[in-house]
Amino acid sequence: MTYIPYSDVEIDGGFWQAVQSRNRDVTLGCVRAQFEKTGRFAALHCDWREGQPDRPHIFWDSDVAKWTESAAYVLKKHPDETLMRQVEDVIDCIEAHQCADGYFNSYFQSVEPAARFTRRGDHELYCAGHWIEAAAAYYEATGRRRFLDLICRYADLIDRVFRKEESASFSTPGHEEIELALVKLYVCTSEKRYLDLCLHFLNRRGAEGTKDGDVGDPRAAYWQGHLPVRQQKTAEGHAVRACYLYCAMADAARLTGDEALRGACEALFDNICEKRMYVTGGVGSSYDGERFTGDYDLPNAEAYAETCAAISLTLFASRMSLLSADGKYADAVERALYNGILSGVSLDGTSFFYTNPLAIDLDTRRANDCREQVYRPLTHRVEVFSCSCCPPNVTRFLASLGGMLYSRTDDTVYVHQYMHSEAALDGASLRVRTAYPEDGMIRIAASGLAGRRLALRIPGWCRSFELDGAEAVTEKRYACFTVPTDDFACTLRLAMEPVFYEASPRVTADAGKVALAKGPVVYCLEGLDNEGDLHGVCADIFETPEAGTDEALGVPTLTVRGWRKKACACCGGPLYRPVSGDYRPVKLRFIPYYAFANRDETDMAVWVPKL
Amino acid sequence: MTYIPYSDVEIDGGFWQAVQSRNRDVTLGCVRAQFEKTGRFAALHCDWREGQPDRPHIFWDSDVAKWTESAAYVLKKHPDETLMRQVEDVIDCIEAHQCADGYFNSYFQSVEPAARFTRRGDHELYCAGHWIEAAAAYYEATGRRRFLDLICRYADLIDRVFRKEESASFSTPGHEEIELALVKLYVCTSEKRYLDLCLHFLNRRGAEGTKDGDVGDPRAAYWQGHLPVRQQKTAEGHAVRACYLYCAMADAARLTGDEALRGACEALFDNICEKRMYVTGGVGSSYDGERFTGDYDLPNAEAYAETCAAISLTLFASRMSLLSADGKYADAVERALYNGILSGVSLDGTSFFYTNPLAIDLDTRRANDCREQVYRPLTHRVEVFSCSCCPPNVTRFLASLGGMLYSRTDDTVYVHQYMHSEAALDGASLRVRTAYPEDGMIRIAASGLAGRRLALRIPGWCRSFELDGAEAVTEKRYACFTVPTDDFACTLRLAMEPVFYEASPRVTADAGKVALAKGPVVYCLEGLDNEGDLHGVCADIFETPEAGTDEALGVPTLTVRGWRKKACACCGGPLYRPVSGDYRPVKLRFIPYYAFANRDETDMAVWVPKL
Repeated sequence: MTYIPYSDVEIDGGFWQAVQSRNRDVTLGCVRAQFEKTGRFAALHCDWREGQPDRPHIFWDSDVAKWTESAAYVLKKHPDETLMRQVEDVIDCIEAHQCADGYFNSYFQSVEPAARFTRRGDHELYCAGHWIEAAAAYYEATGRRRFLDLICRYADLIDRVFRKEESASFSTPGHEEIELALVKLYVCTSEKRYLDLCLHFLNRRGAEGTKDGDVGDPRAAYWQGHLPVRQQKTAEGHAVRACYLYCAMADAARLTGDEALRGACEALFDNICEKRMYVTGGVGSSYDGERFTGDYDLPNAEAYAETCAAISLTLFASRMSLLSADGKYADAVERALYNGILSGVSLDGTSFFYTNPLAIDLDTRRANDCREQVYRPLTHRVEVFSCSCCPPNVTRFLASLGGMLYSRTDDTVYVHQYMHSEAALDGASLRVRTAYPEDGMIRIAASGLAGRRLALRIPGWCRSFELDGAEAVTEKRYACFTVPTDDFACTLRLAMEPVFYEASPRVTADAGKVALAKGPVVYCLEGLDNEGDLHGVCADIFETPEAGTDEALGVPTLTVRGWRKKACACCGGPLYRPVSGDYRPVKLRFIPYYAFANRDETDMAVWVPKL
Repeated sequence: MTYIPYSDVEIDGGFWQAVQSRNRDVTLGCVRAQFEKTGRFAALHCDWREGQPDRPHIFWDSDVAKWTESAAYVLKKHPDETLMRQVEDVIDCIEAHQCADGYFNSYFQSVEPAARFTRRGDHELYCAGHWIEAAAAYYEATGRRRFLDLICRYADLIDRVFRKEESASFSTPGHEEIELALVKLYVCTSEKRYLDLCLHFLNRRGAEGTKDGDVGDPRAAYWQGHLPVRQQKTAEGHAVRACYLYCAMADAARLTGDEALRGACEALFDNICEKRMYVTGGVGSSYDGERFTGDYDLPNAEAYAETCAAISLTLFASRMSLLSADGKYADAVERALYNGILSGVSLDGTSFFYTNPLAIDLDTRRANDCREQVYRPLTHRVEVFSCSCCPPNVTRFLASLGGMLYSRTDDTVYVHQYMHSEAALDGASLRVRTAYPEDGMIRIAASGLAGRRLALRIPGWCRSFELDGAEAVTEKRYACFTVPTDDFACTLRLAMEPVFYEASPRVTADAGKVALAKGPVVYCLEGLDNEGDLHGVCADIFETPEAGTDEALGVPTLTVRGWRKKACACCGGPLYRPVSGDYRPVKLRFIPYYAFANRDETDMAVWVPKL
């Protein structure tokens, strides 16, 4: 099974067309401007010297590479000379400053030339991986080979140094990424050595006899070196590194038929989604190490849940769908997509979250101003971070989003995500018309697909559905049927009423609390919509939420009956008192989680006590 | 108003007699043995030299001094030659090694003689304060002057260096304590210069023109130097330092009639008890800085709530009672006494908590093993800490507890705490017979008190009471009446049913949760009594708790109907699911908070979700 590539999918209306337009017209330029301003583009000239401003950082290349990859996806759909010139400028820099042996890294070449390939923790292969992804994307978008050829020279150097000669000071990357990039390069070039190098890195990780010294080192779990990859069953360590690794493992399992790798991927996925994932699809709950911790440890106000981690989870989950058409994989993609990823960028597309908390209590934050070590997630998005991996990850993700919607085998076309879109395949086409995620009605028109099967995903959140125009059987949460004619249409109606959710009893942070979602969209309360703060509110879970719209934010709202303690301590109530029933009824106004923190700083909560 | 001293009060039965016996017969010896073992007593010889084991620490003198003070209180009630010999050995050391000018500090004399009085943060005056308290206590207990005379020489040196010459490198102690000790020394010796020195330290703190440089330094709140003391209205910084300071402020306000000081004390007390105190009487919620943070910031599992801080709060509150006979002060004493202080020592009297969490979730703790910086309170008590201030603070507090029960003015005798006890005053006596805190019936017999007023505290938790044998009017939560005869008896019946409490809506950590208490005793759930863990339990607040006894622990229990989520994730439930009603009824078995962690490591919760 393969995805129908983003290049053959047009998101031509509805929710995601607006997001993609904003991404292309606003965000891509904002990210570029910030990277210009901070010297990330200038660094590519490799001429920084001690004493000058804007000292290059070890991960800057990856930032520019992800921006470049984003630009490639945008160019494919919307040719733009200025944008292409900007990308060509980047390529010019690489061509001009690439070492004779193919090496290219603006940090090491400028700052520490002698340290090349000596420090496993310094993101060198991670940056190389992002260049590979960018080059492959640009080649596929434009047909221009220059970038790809330059980067293939670098990949060949890495192949020689790490696989053939093993002459580097370490055996596997400290920050995984290049593994999944090498698979892309293999697919793009059909050069099997790139897949072999990926497999080499996978097989060496956590293995005996490497230079990494991971075996027996308890800290090795941080970079997933605590066990050989096929023996890893629980998601450990830095969440982005982990999920990027799992992506390559899933790719390799699919391309080589390695059942042990596949089994590890299945166990890792289940461990994440059954025990270590926020209801928003965020993963990596701990600021300390930006990492997975243990099962059910999902604090809300202190949640790390990096935007990149949610993106990396969708990249992993979407690869799992290719291994096995089980709706749970696309469910995970959808959960992160509508919540923990989309929250990473402001509604106007200009600013970003790095971490995505599930609660903000301003009073507690202020109370903790006196602490030196406490972790305080941001309460509003900012334009750039010193470690700014997330913004260009968002831009490339959104620009290539169409590539996650449909997949195909010889006889079946799968619809994984419902977006107003049209896909082309083999001269045939599939058209989806829907107001999703606002509404669960999905009209599907298939042209030229007679005799093939259609498999329509029934989301995990959906408690009932109707399919008009076809007789389907449901297999692993896909409604499947054979398309009878070349001019076929059907309508899928997914029941999409708002639902209050509870977490597993083992999630201590959510004890006694509920979260409200409609379809895939998780909602939250903000103080601004609810009398200024969220102290003492609780939700009436037996009342049906009422749908509305916030015109200023341009997002849907859900209003439910709730209760609020009458004697607010603002006015001097007692700190402790016998349980009282003196609640007053209030209307609790929820907005989508992805829309939080787009106004003034205010309290926020996804999990709300129930009466 | 003054307290009837512990020496004139005999706790001669009931709950606290048992606690005092354990303190005397077990704990005092355990603390001594640990201090012997760790070299704290040997350090008094001031002969440690670099390269030897057991390097003295800057606060070791205070540990030994508090143990010595404890011994003095015990000796007063139970003369014991061995114990007296042990104290005399300490005094011998001081006499043998005290400097010619009166200085005595085992750390500075052994380790850094040149650094004397140069480092404000090094607990030098804090240690001196504890020696003063010990010497005054020993003199009052035994009539022996040697210790007192030695320590007066030291106090006189401090007076000269800090007040008269101002020749030290700093102006006020970094860790307050000596201020309240100087008041004791003044009361013990009637030498006004000690009160003057106390006032000097109070007046210089946070003031312009000192060597401390506190004015304008945002970090100064840590040691209460952010404002002149009369301008302090909120409890800030290190909780033990803060409350020790407030003790001296309250003493000074009473002894000098300083209304500005009194006003500050009242504001500080109210800020603590209305906004910054755990339901257990614990204060100082933050591990980082062992400090007060801000209003309503009272996390449970991460609670610091040092035992010493709860003790220091009772010392402050009991002094406030002397300034103003308002029951809220004795309420605070009682809250800490039965909960956050008593929890600091194990039921067998041999081991201790330094911090007193209000929740333990073993799964979350294990999940966080991978974190480097997370704060993990202990889950079981230990015999000694490297910083072992709490154990001897408990021993001296419990040994002198009788001194907090009764106070008197010329015409009124106040009963602040109800313990099975007898007090002597002016040839008269007052006898209390009660099973408190198990039962709210208190029989009071007064002999020789005709014509004086009795004022019996009606605790803040008590919703109704009956007084048989007297007609009382209630003033600031004291039931007051004139004793009619010299052979008088009455019975006070305080309604003492178990009550579920809620916290102010502003305490985010307790949102949607309740705490169970009976009278002054706060209860908690332990996993051991409740199917092994506390996941998914909630309490039915409409059910009347049933009283029982845990024979093995020797403590009362309260059992209430509760509910537990059926589909436990142990068996593979979903991480998130629509809210369900599939609870099963359970009996939740609560034990007193002071008794938690006396068995195997297990989950614990004071605040429990309600259905």
